[in-house]
Amino acid sequence: MTGFVALDWGTSSLRAARLDANGQVLDEHHSGDGIMHVPFGGFPAVFAAAVERWHLPPGTLCLASGMVGSRQGWIEAPYCPCPADFGAVASRVAWVPDAPGGLRVGIVPGLSTEVGGVPDVMRGEEVQIFGALRVLGVHDGAFIHPGTHSKWVRVEQDRIVSFATFMTGEFYGLLRRHSIIGRTLPPEDGPLDEAAFLRGVLHAREAGSLLHGAFSGRTLALFARLPDAALPSYLSGLVIGEELRAHQLDNSGAHPVLVGADALTRRYQLALTAHGVQSTVLGDAATWRGLAALAHILELQ
Amino acid sequence: MTGFVALDWGTSSLRAARLDANGQVLDEHHSGDGIMHVPFGGFPAVFAAAVERWHLPPGTLCLASGMVGSRQGWIEAPYCPCPADFGAVASRVAWVPDAPGGLRVGIVPGLSTEVGGVPDVMRGEEVQIFGALRVLGVHDGAFIHPGTHSKWVRVEQDRIVSFATFMTGEFYGLLRRHSIIGRTLPPEDGPLDEAAFLRGVLHAREAGSLLHGAFSGRTLALFARLPDAALPSYLSGLVIGEELRAHQLDNSGAHPVLVGADALTRRYQLALTAHGVQSTVLGDAATWRGLAALAHILELQ
Repeated sequence: MTGFVALDWGTSSLRAARLDANGQVLDEHHSGDGIMHVPFGGFPAVFAAAVERWHLPPGTLCLASGMVGSRQGWIEAPYCPCPADFGAVASRVAWVPDAPGGLRVGIVPGLSTEVGGVPDVMRGEEVQIFGALRVLGVHDGAFIHPGTHSKWVRVEQDRIVSFATFMTGEFYGLLRRHSIIGRTLPPEDGPLDEAAFLRGVLHAREAGSLLHGAFSGRTLALFARLPDAALPSYLSGLVIGEELRAHQLDNSGAHPVLVGADALTRRYQLALTAHGVQSTVLGDAATWRGLAALAHILELQ
Repeated sequence: MTGFVALDWGTSSLRAARLDANGQVLDEHHSGDGIMHVPFGGFPAVFAAAVERWHLPPGTLCLASGMVGSRQGWIEAPYCPCPADFGAVASRVAWVPDAPGGLRVGIVPGLSTEVGGVPDVMRGEEVQIFGALRVLGVHDGAFIHPGTHSKWVRVEQDRIVSFATFMTGEFYGLLRRHSIIGRTLPPEDGPLDEAAFLRGVLHAREAGSLLHGAFSGRTLALFARLPDAALPSYLSGLVIGEELRAHQLDNSGAHPVLVGADALTRRYQLALTAHGVQSTVLGDAATWRGLAALAHILELQ
């Protein structure tokens, strides 16, 4: 194979990379062209602009994962139900008809699961989890993908068997920007105050629900028990701590793997340590590794 | 005594009542003059306008409870620490110096409590709880005051011994107006859909945390498992159900008493019933009864 192009196309940003036949990244660039910024009918043009620097020959494989496959994206790639391995995901890639430049553009589907009649979904994180399996050389494990909507993912024998979403990042934003707690917070978050962060993590466990625990963000400020500058870190600890409180960490002794951006995985690692749980951290590189593995499967077909 | 005036002066509204010497309401009126709408230095004028219709003789007792006693209110009435009975609250009423018309204007303090180094506070609800004790003729019990910030209150031998705040109403507003879930909701809440509400209550219990449970408001809409019109009721069930999930309902067999506005206490009663817990409902009249009891104590001093 002559190499391919990988795109991580989310709600607010677009990352694109040119990879060689061995999956090594040759070139990479980022832009703010997330799907929420693409005008109606504008996906072919935004895509063409993102890859034109590479002068790709017609027929080159371009694989995009993330919200670009949602109903609000380029074309909808319906969710692949769990349990699912990478073969199942590959077989459900949605191909863009008449893609620009004669390129072979595939949109990776997300995954769906269901517990007690309630569906759960992800788009894009599954590629990173599959990539993480390859980076680590493992076939099973518990993975946490922190973010606006954090995902807790269980993998058995190379298959994602189940997962659960926590709206942790979104709740942080809601409380920070729109709640009564936000009124006493400084305009910028500033650097992480570890002590305040861990105090939030531990209070979340005591409080038993964010509905109750979050009010401490108000009262600690009211009684000047916490300096205003420490409140964003405390609030971050409250929401991440709530996520950890709620999730049943398994007792198998296996350490969860944190996949994602450094600043966030580091906070989760701190919080997990406070809960007595060791963890492994893996950076964003897992995305390209996952898309490369998927491209390999598709090229073999 | 010649009767007195009671004011329930909160963040967004002001209710005032003229009561006779026996605590019977002679006249009552509401306005939107909550403390957030009072201009700086404007409290004496807003108060005078609220009571002028009654042509009160100088020296008449006027008692105000609620956020009017906060740092953002008329004068600050520092919190009275728990455990506290009505005598303790009465002894800490803050008197307004040089009140309009020579009236004797007292601001009722709120209550504070502390668990594990984290304070909790209320302002105004304590008067309704004390009023409820008198309406029901009881001296002990568990009381729930639903609202923007719901209060769970424990009373023993006429004293409020402890309480906890749940930001239930505020979280509903955050999710409804500012979250990804709100995008699929109809512009108006509409009448309560009991089935959807109870489905939310039960899912909150299963989910174990609102961070996870709230995402079902997104996926049920995404998969068209719930009509958009039913989503506000479902979301209301999720947040109220989370409050019930989190709180340790005692096993003493005593029924909690719901104190507050009808529309809200009715929802809580439905949710409690779904949890197998019977409850008693008491309307807003408890406020006047509480302020009347407080006035009686103050007149005797």
